[in-house]
Amino acid sequence: MVDIPERARELLGRPILVNLATTRPDGAPQVNPMWFIWDGEFIWFTHTSYRQKYKNLAHEPRVSISLLDPEDKYGYVEIRGVVDHIDPDPEAKLYQRLSEWYDGKPITPADAAQRVAIAVRPTKVHV
Amino acid sequence: MVDIPERARELLGRPILVNLATTRPDGAPQVNPMWFIWDGEFIWFTHTSYRQKYKNLAHEPRVSISLLDPEDKYGYVEIRGVVDHIDPDPEAKLYQRLSEWYDGKPITPADAAQRVAIAVRPTKVHV
Repeated sequence: MVDIPERARELLGRPILVNLATTRPDGAPQVNPMWFIWDGEFIWFTHTSYRQKYKNLAHEPRVSISLLDPEDKYGYVEIRGVVDHIDPDPEAKLYQRLSEWYDGKPITPADAAQRVAIAVRPTKVHV
Repeated sequence: MVDIPERARELLGRPILVNLATTRPDGAPQVNPMWFIWDGEFIWFTHTSYRQKYKNLAHEPRVSISLLDPEDKYGYVEIRGVVDHIDPDPEAKLYQRLSEWYDGKPITPADAAQRVAIAVRPTKVHV
């Protein structure tokens, strides 16, 4: 496993919106803010199986994640990684967990049946 | 020119850090926070001619930009675009302008001689 410096661990342990970049099948990049949770091995994202980002990851599993420190606008970390696996999550348990972590109440989204949990393995960290 | 909705114009007019995603020559995405300025036609970024992002853009000129509203964490805009042109900026005039706009004082960076000004033309806006 790649070494995760303390500075990155500190940001990975907080409910901050990160920007997740993926590559579209035609080669253009895509980037969106995302909730995440870090379990010490994987960075987990909730998503659905019918949206563009899922198609991107099926085609190109490498990602890049930008974490900005809300208290230090120039304190940022870039983590490059790769999708290790994607689990079906038809009860949206990861979404519930993340909505509670970020907003204080567990929400079950309307698209729960199509929800997936994406596990990203970090491969390089720029602090 | 693509239509820029009012919501996007509002964010484009403020000194917020945006996340700029590019595609590396090997197909993996890259994303970093960046200063920018919008002139009504192009979104301008200051960069250098020797760093990875410049190499990425020479290979794949399409980019994606994520703008988060600092006052509304779920108010974000994604702008897809393409590099229209890149101007040499050996006096780092764009860096000076951006450092004044973001931090209140114009700075001339040590790498001024290698500075370039990157003009991105928006091609699609998701609000």
